[in-house]
Amino acid sequence: MPGPLPDPLLERLLARWPVARLATVAADGRPHVVPVVFAWCEGALWSPIDAKPKRGGPLARERHLAREPRAALLLDRYDADWDALWWIRIDGRAELRPVPADAGAGSPEARATAALRAKYPQYRRVALFATPEAARLVRLVPERTASWYASDRVLAALREA
Amino acid sequence: MPGPLPDPLLERLLARWPVARLATVAADGRPHVVPVVFAWCEGALWSPIDAKPKRGGPLARERHLAREPRAALLLDRYDADWDALWWIRIDGRAELRPVPADAGAGSPEARATAALRAKYPQYRRVALFATPEAARLVRLVPERTASWYASDRVLAALREA
Repeated sequence: MPGPLPDPLLERLLARWPVARLATVAADGRPHVVPVVFAWCEGALWSPIDAKPKRGGPLARERHLAREPRAALLLDRYDADWDALWWIRIDGRAELRPVPADAGAGSPEARATAALRAKYPQYRRVALFATPEAARLVRLVPERTASWYASDRVLAALREA
Repeated sequence: MPGPLPDPLLERLLARWPVARLATVAADGRPHVVPVVFAWCEGALWSPIDAKPKRGGPLARERHLAREPRAALLLDRYDADWDALWWIRIDGRAELRPVPADAGAGSPEARATAALRAKYPQYRRVALFATPEAARLVRLVPERTASWYASDRVLAALREA
């Protein structure tokens, strides 16, 4: 029966799924949504403001979160086989966290940075941060989790993955 | 050079890309985001409230749009090859449009319904609408389009697709 995903599968997907979409609210009240990479670390979701090619200046998500920390992060799978669909939505509060260049390995920001490097080998080639001075992460602390899956085949496939 | 996608590729992706994420704003000001299927038809994006298994009652997106029509729709590709990434974000106004059972084939709602059936063969098996009485579509009228791609290889791949 379709319904919320069991906790062990939720945790596995939060740890391994490579992409999510982050929704924020702009100053004028409009919703905004952008694809992000993320790592699950220390009970929060961390997403870097990384060095993939971008326009200069603070990103929309940064401006939005400075004013309205409430955010939603969606993980989901699309497939032409609609019995294979699932989604997870995390509602929570997000803020920008600077990663000091001299951050000890014991800081949450340093551990989240290590988790991102471990999850994404792409960061061997793409700079995780544009400059050491600009190093910053979005930290989303979950307040509520909702999920859905289309059929029991989703559970079987996720348990085998 | 990374930047906005050329118009012909935007149009092709709006016509063919199978999935998008719809962001809305809840009554309490929180952002919300959900995966959707959609069709591009008559200058708008149409997404059905279809019969994929769901809880009963009006969906969150319906309640939100009744109060705040401003919405954002994100199309994007994730790939382990970060040179293959792109996204398109459509900001606009959305509303629920009933599809009358006796809608003439000439109505926008009937044409959007036909476009959804043509795009998604899955609707031969999944009901497009849970009941004829409940037939309704989200219609998003674009006000602003933003896009991004990671490298020239994206353009080459999209032109060949």
